[in-house]
Amino acid sequence: MKQPFPFSAIVGQEDMKRAMILTAVDPGIGGVLVFGDRGTGKSTAVRALAALLPEIAVLEGSPTNAAQAADHPDWADPVSGKTRRVPTPVVDLPLGATEDRVIGALDIERALTRGEKAFEPGLLARANRGYLYIDEVNLLEDHIVDLLLDVAQSGENVIEREGLSIRHDARFVLVGSGNPEEGELRPQLLDRFGLSVEVRSPTDIEERIEVIRRRAAFDTDPDAFLKKWRREDTRIRKAILTARDALSGIATPDDTLRDCARLCMTLGSDGLRGELTLLRAARALAAFEGQSTVSRHHLRTVAPMALCHRLRRDPLDEAGSTARVTRTVEDVFA
Amino acid sequence: MKQPFPFSAIVGQEDMKRAMILTAVDPGIGGVLVFGDRGTGKSTAVRALAALLPEIAVLEGSPTNAAQAADHPDWADPVSGKTRRVPTPVVDLPLGATEDRVIGALDIERALTRGEKAFEPGLLARANRGYLYIDEVNLLEDHIVDLLLDVAQSGENVIEREGLSIRHDARFVLVGSGNPEEGELRPQLLDRFGLSVEVRSPTDIEERIEVIRRRAAFDTDPDAFLKKWRREDTRIRKAILTARDALSGIATPDDTLRDCARLCMTLGSDGLRGELTLLRAARALAAFEGQSTVSRHHLRTVAPMALCHRLRRDPLDEAGSTARVTRTVEDVFA
Amino acid sequence: MKQPFPFSAIVGQEDMKRAMILTAVDPGIGGVLVFGDRGTGKSTAVRALAALLPEIAVLEGSPTNAAQAADHPDWADPVSGKTRRVPTPVVDLPLGATEDRVIGALDIERALTRGEKAFEPGLLARANRGYLYIDEVNLLEDHIVDLLLDVAQSGENVIEREGLSIRHDARFVLVGSGNPEEGELRPQLLDRFGLSVEVRSPTDIEERIEVIRRRAAFDTDPDAFLKKWRREDTRIRKAILTARDALSGIATPDDTLRDCARLCMTLGSDGLRGELTLLRAARALAAFEGQSTVSRHHLRTVAPMALCHRLRRDPLDEAGSTARVTRTVEDVFA
Amino acid sequence: MKQPFPFSAIVGQEDMKRAMILTAVDPGIGGVLVFGDRGTGKSTAVRALAALLPEIAVLEGSPTNAAQAADHPDWADPVSGKTRRVPTPVVDLPLGATEDRVIGALDIERALTRGEKAFEPGLLARANRGYLYIDEVNLLEDHIVDLLLDVAQSGENVIEREGLSIRHDARFVLVGSGNPEEGELRPQLLDRFGLSVEVRSPTDIEERIEVIRRRAAFDTDPDAFLKKWRREDTRIRKAILTARDALSGIATPDDTLRDCARLCMTLGSDGLRGELTLLRAARALAAFEGQSTVSRHHLRTVAPMALCHRLRRDPLDEAGSTARVTRTVEDVFA
Amino acid sequence: MKQPFPFSAIVGQEDMKRAMILTAVDPGIGGVLVFGDRGTGKSTAVRALAALLPEIAVLEGSPTNAAQAADHPDWADPVSGKTRRVPTPVVDLPLGATEDRVIGALDIERALTRGEKAFEPGLLARANRGYLYIDEVNLLEDHIVDLLLDVAQSGENVIEREGLSIRHDARFVLVGSGNPEEGELRPQLLDRFGLSVEVRSPTDIEERIEVIRRRAAFDTDPDAFLKKWRREDTRIRKAILTARDALSGIATPDDTLRDCARLCMTLGSDGLRGELTLLRAARALAAFEGQSTVSRHHLRTVAPMALCHRLRRDPLDEAGSTARVTRTVEDVFA
Amino acid sequence: MKQPFPFSAIVGQEDMKRAMILTAVDPGIGGVLVFGDRGTGKSTAVRALAALLPEIAVLEGSPTNAAQAADHPDWADPVSGKTRRVPTPVVDLPLGATEDRVIGALDIERALTRGEKAFEPGLLARANRGYLYIDEVNLLEDHIVDLLLDVAQSGENVIEREGLSIRHDARFVLVGSGNPEEGELRPQLLDRFGLSVEVRSPTDIEERIEVIRRRAAFDTDPDAFLKKWRREDTRIRKAILTARDALSGIATPDDTLRDCARLCMTLGSDGLRGELTLLRAARALAAFEGQSTVSRHHLRTVAPMALCHRLRRDPLDEAGSTARVTRTVEDVFA
Repeated sequence: MKQPFPFSAIVGQEDMKRAMILTAVDPGIGGVLVFGDRGTGKSTAVRALAALLPEIAVLEGSPTNAAQAADHPDWADPVSGKTRRVPTPVVDLPLGATEDRVIGALDIERALTRGEKAFEPGLLARANRGYLYIDEVNLLEDHIVDLLLDVAQSGENVIEREGLSIRHDARFVLVGSGNPEEGELRPQLLDRFGLSVEVRSPTDIEERIEVIRRRAAFDTDPDAFLKKWRREDTRIRKAILTARDALSGIATPDDTLRDCARLCMTLGSDGLRGELTLLRAARALAAFEGQSTVSRHHLRTVAPMALCHRLRRDPLDEAGSTARVTRTVEDVFA
Repeated sequence: MKQPFPFSAIVGQEDMKRAMILTAVDPGIGGVLVFGDRGTGKSTAVRALAALLPEIAVLEGSPTNAAQAADHPDWADPVSGKTRRVPTPVVDLPLGATEDRVIGALDIERALTRGEKAFEPGLLARANRGYLYIDEVNLLEDHIVDLLLDVAQSGENVIEREGLSIRHDARFVLVGSGNPEEGELRPQLLDRFGLSVEVRSPTDIEERIEVIRRRAAFDTDPDAFLKKWRREDTRIRKAILTARDALSGIATPDDTLRDCARLCMTLGSDGLRGELTLLRAARALAAFEGQSTVSRHHLRTVAPMALCHRLRRDPLDEAGSTARVTRTVEDVFA
Repeated sequence: MKQPFPFSAIVGQEDMKRAMILTAVDPGIGGVLVFGDRGTGKSTAVRALAALLPEIAVLEGSPTNAAQAADHPDWADPVSGKTRRVPTPVVDLPLGATEDRVIGALDIERALTRGEKAFEPGLLARANRGYLYIDEVNLLEDHIVDLLLDVAQSGENVIEREGLSIRHDARFVLVGSGNPEEGELRPQLLDRFGLSVEVRSPTDIEERIEVIRRRAAFDTDPDAFLKKWRREDTRIRKAILTARDALSGIATPDDTLRDCARLCMTLGSDGLRGELTLLRAARALAAFEGQSTVSRHHLRTVAPMALCHRLRRDPLDEAGSTARVTRTVEDVFA
Repeated sequence: MKQPFPFSAIVGQEDMKRAMILTAVDPGIGGVLVFGDRGTGKSTAVRALAALLPEIAVLEGSPTNAAQAADHPDWADPVSGKTRRVPTPVVDLPLGATEDRVIGALDIERALTRGEKAFEPGLLARANRGYLYIDEVNLLEDHIVDLLLDVAQSGENVIEREGLSIRHDARFVLVGSGNPEEGELRPQLLDRFGLSVEVRSPTDIEERIEVIRRRAAFDTDPDAFLKKWRREDTRIRKAILTARDALSGIATPDDTLRDCARLCMTLGSDGLRGELTLLRAARALAAFEGQSTVSRHHLRTVAPMALCHRLRRDPLDEAGSTARVTRTVEDVFA
Repeated sequence: MKQPFPFSAIVGQEDMKRAMILTAVDPGIGGVLVFGDRGTGKSTAVRALAALLPEIAVLEGSPTNAAQAADHPDWADPVSGKTRRVPTPVVDLPLGATEDRVIGALDIERALTRGEKAFEPGLLARANRGYLYIDEVNLLEDHIVDLLLDVAQSGENVIEREGLSIRHDARFVLVGSGNPEEGELRPQLLDRFGLSVEVRSPTDIEERIEVIRRRAAFDTDPDAFLKKWRREDTRIRKAILTARDALSGIATPDDTLRDCARLCMTLGSDGLRGELTLLRAARALAAFEGQSTVSRHHLRTVAPMALCHRLRRDPLDEAGSTARVTRTVEDVFA
Repeated sequence: MKQPFPFSAIVGQEDMKRAMILTAVDPGIGGVLVFGDRGTGKSTAVRALAALLPEIAVLEGSPTNAAQAADHPDWADPVSGKTRRVPTPVVDLPLGATEDRVIGALDIERALTRGEKAFEPGLLARANRGYLYIDEVNLLEDHIVDLLLDVAQSGENVIEREGLSIRHDARFVLVGSGNPEEGELRPQLLDRFGLSVEVRSPTDIEERIEVIRRRAAFDTDPDAFLKKWRREDTRIRKAILTARDALSGIATPDDTLRDCARLCMTLGSDGLRGELTLLRAARALAAFEGQSTVSRHHLRTVAPMALCHRLRRDPLDEAGSTARVTRTVEDVFA
């Protein structure tokens, strides 16, 4: 279990890989929802992402992965101030995790042994500055998804329970996978995910054979396989780091703002999260591609993943939402 | 997260902003319900309100933000008597907050360590003299909403549970946001909110571009953006303070009382909360606009927000409730 | 919150006020159910009643407001025997009150600190010799209403739970308000309330204006307003005290018994609680009006409030139950 | 509350009074179900029964009212052996009584203070050798009714819970009142009650007036009223005691057995509890009437109360079950 | 309660009595389900069985009635090794028994006083080597019935809860009574009972009179009645003991195996439990009747009780399942 | 209970036996679902498997059956390092096992006595390197099945609850039996089982007689019966061990990959788990049959058990899913 499948060895699934890279460039884009048939490698991809992401510097002993003393929470034990580089945290929300382990809770042990009302941080603390992955997010109860999105959006975990009144940084990207056949998320929740992508089983036989072949090669000799793909993974990691630095300098022409607004109004997406996310994702893509200005090419590429899950169902339009977004982009940009 | 978006930089949404200002002038008007599509900036607006509101003087150490020794609750530890100025409290009811943290509960730590049955105040104590904000109030269980409205109306939190029999001041304005597509509030609950406003995504493209532009400017350089809007926020804050002082001196001609009663009888709103709220809101508006007498202009402006949520559904009238109120105002005032 | 609106300043709502006064004259009549639209001042009226009621003498320190040593419960700490006059207790059942706080429960603090199984009395103890008010009684679970009515009827609270086996006096009048649109009470429960009245928003414009005017006057200067109405409140209080003394001497002619029986048989009310309550209420009214004998005038006045909630629904009779009672009274007395 | 209404002053309701008397003569008949409209004095009658029943001799300090040392439970503290005469216990199952208080439970106080796993007996222990009254038995959950009937039938309370494995005598007559409009008991439960009677509001006006008159007299001067009826109550009590002694000597001719069997087969009552109860009730009636042999007169009198609740519903027979039993008795005895 | 009605004095009900005797000869046949109208003496029969069954030798102090040291569970206190003869245990599952008392649980007393995690055995331990009786088994929750059948079948109680990991012998015959009108068992559960029998009220008047006569005789003078029937009960007990010894020597011709298989295939019973139980029951009957070889007579006698509850419902076949089995036996054996 | 029925003495049921053998050769194939009528010996087969499986070497005292020090979990007490050979663990999930006993939980005893927050491993730890058997898996709640499959797939048990944050090896094969008539598993869950097989009652009379004969022989003299079949069981065990060693050397021609992909695409199975499992199972079969290369014979044999439960329902195709797979194999391989 130690060695995940290499990110760059995933056959196809370009949208999913791109969405994940964009959130690595700008975590402010928000979470990613991955819809798709069972067995299409959704959880493999997320686990692969873990190995790809750049390392971060954290204070030793900080329960929230704080980068500097000012960010270290006051309810935690003091730290020495030394930092060390660790992999970007990718926290997996296991099935059956209880709410108190997710958001943190009263530290029962200290309460019993020392009579103190101390806070024991949960998974949200551990996910700070990283990723939180939830398999089959549509099977979670709404109030938990809501809570997770709330924290992901605000970047802060506020605990008001069991006599505790605590808050701590919890900046992370939420990645959820779901099977649309098994129950849906409320529109209100969908809207709060930044991007959504759909993955399908490949329909090309050579692609399917390639998937089996690579998987078999990985199962037979993982070390050799990882070595073969390490170079490509490293290339992507470096491109992400470069893009992060470039992000704030990306120019956003007024025409781009107008394009965003026209697209969303034409599609009739509710609220303004659509255009705001579209813009952020396009800027991140421009940075990742090494360009200095957002162009229609970037909007066109990210529009489906930024807008699809924000459309109202149109029962008269048999094409899927991706097709509707693509068609509208072409009409508006014509 | 420290710096909220400036109140005055919110594009459009005049009704929502006015309703919030009126409750700042006269908290006795009652809570505000904000209905609207997702992504229309409802929670941004409430968070912006926090920075706008005037400071209050509180006793240091008072769990209920008491202004003077006489208001300090007897179940709390004694205070020195020194006061300090703090921002008007705006308490956010986080998702997953437990009922004991909302209304307060037995202090388990003191019970265990000192064998005392002490009270640990909850969010309602902390919201005293301020605002309590609930996102998606329609997703809360009825009995909690009922309890919150009960406390908001009486200004007092009465706790009868776990062997405690406690009461303390809890004067706050309840602000709830809700999405009408996601479940409704019972009429009984609606009636107990003072005002209601509806917010929609702007349909004008220039306005939408302006929203994106301001948001992008705020995201890029928050300090510069805040500085740019500080003057306007300050202007509003001062107007609120002036209006508070003027409020008790606003004249209310008998014709105004008659206008209120005629409006509500024509609209067929149940009970008398309609006219009472209409009058209070009109008086607050007159004070905010620096006038000494309530006029039909004030009634006309606040009638929709004071009355819309108190109408019975009329299935034969396809116009929305706002249109019905406006039309009736014109008929009655003709 | 300290100063309630004066009872006699309530505009109209004569039935409700009369029903409350009658239960003050003879608490044995049983509880009062107040039905009505929202915002018609039901809770204002009950709170006003609190200030109107005569004071009672209680033993200092008695948890059940005992009048003399013989009534003081043996499970409570001993008392000195000194009495003092206190306002008639009016206990408000707050939303969210737990069952243990209503009926009383094991005193956890004493159990933990002294290892004793002591009883901690609840709201029912505190309501002894007074009133218990429940807003929106129809929203309470049936089993609680049943329990409250059971105690109200028997005048005794019997606790068999958590290892406790306790009983204490709990003689109080239950006043419940309810909105018939929000769920109904079972006929079995309705029958156990002594009286029921309906309140509506006034349909006369002058009356509505008068309501707003008095309310505004009270909000602006409560002290002046209270002073203005104190004399009238005092007049009613004295009439109640006089009526209490006269009650046992009111003559009840055999014709009155026959009238009661004929009325109830003609209306087809189940059981005999109808005629028994009708008789008690008529006697109380005679006493309040200073007369020595019950007459048809008294029966006619109290018949609707004593009988309306005891009728079976007649789907063929479109008139309301009040009209049916009034019409039957006229037929029977013709 | 101390003085119940005298049993013999109850107007009419002969069946109910007779059923109660028969179970006092032979508790082995089983429980009594009293069906009827609300307000027909069901609970008044049961409370009246308490004062009527003969006293019993019990060991001082015995939690199960044991008559002699051999019956005293071994889990209880030892007793001195002295007996005293006490009224027949009539235990009222209060609404909200928890299951642990009904059947008994672990004595938490002793567990906590002395570290012992002692048993604290419940209402079933206190009801031993007496009556257990449940108002609105149809509102209880089936499993509790089932449990109560099980104990009532076996005469033994078996506790297997919370680590306790206890049994004690619990011989009592279960009296339940119910309103057939508010939910029914399962046939399986009905069958386990020995007798059932129906009470209705009197339809004769003079009878109704008499009810009101007696009630008013009792309310006005209870002592005088009780004195007036004491002689008649005493007469009944003595007749019960005489009948108890005579019971074992009542002759039961073979024709009586045949009559019982024919009646039940003709009525098609399931099982054999019908004829067994019919026979016991007829023997008890013969004893109460001072006769030495069961006759058809006795069978005819008790047949409706012993058999009505054991008939299957016959949707084609519009007559009530009492009429069906009476008619069948006449046919079979013709 | 001490003296149950004698087994052999039960009038009729031959199938039920035979089924119980067969499980006494060979407990490996599995449990018995007794279906039938209420009041047909199902529980009387089971209680009667208790007195009929032969005694067993058990180690003194063994919580599982172990016969020898090797069977004594290691989690229990050590025993001296002395054995004594006790009646075959017949454990009654009382209504309201909690799951922890059924399967056993953590011994709270020892946990609290000695800090040990000891096991406190439940009813399943006490039923080892005997009978477990459940009245109205169809009212139990499926998961409990499932658990009981699981233990009954495996002969072992496996506890994995509350930190305990315990197993002990629990070989018993499960006897359940049920009323088919009150809810059914899932086919999956039915199949796991070895035998099923149906009992009905007798339709012959002389038989009914005989039931009443014997019952009345028993109620009047239990000792005389028991003495009268003791000889017959003893005869049956001895026959059971003789049959147990003979059981392993009963010859089973190949034709018998073929008859079993043909019968079950013709009836279309699912799975193979049908023929396996049929064979065991026929062998036990042969042994009880003192014969050395299984014959078609034995198969014919036990086929209905071994197979009826394993048939699929045939909506086109109006005859009951007993008739279908009997008819098929005649066809196959023709 | 000690001696299970021998695996090789099971009559017929070849598919079930083969599926179990394949998972013994390559546990990476995943779990096995056994569908079928009740009484077809599903649980007998699993219990038989226990005796057949090869022994494994484990560290003495390791709660997770660790093979070497590096695998021993750090939260457990240290071990000496000595290993011993034990049977392959086959853990039975008993009905009523609580979630904490399945995944492990806080060790309450140590928490109470030593004040330590220690982990007490559950059934998943005990099943490491072996089998976990669940009877009637379709009756388990989805979230538990999901959790079990999650752990089985990842080979690691992650506990985030009660303040614990623990992980340990939990590599096991999940074997579940189910009755399709009693509720279905969600497709999402089905897909995560590696193989599925169906068992039916034999329809051949000689086979049924053979089943009864063997069972009777086993019941009569288990030792003789086991001895008779031991040789055949040993032969299978050795073949499994040989196959395990050969597994990594089995050649997988490109044509085989293509066959897998074509089969799954033609059948339209979602995702890629179908071809991946098909390939693994075919490789395991080749190894078990002593061949060095996967051939179409192997694919043909395992295709139904690897693919049947992954097909979408085709309401127009009346043949069962096994027939569809077989037919498609013939078409594709034609």
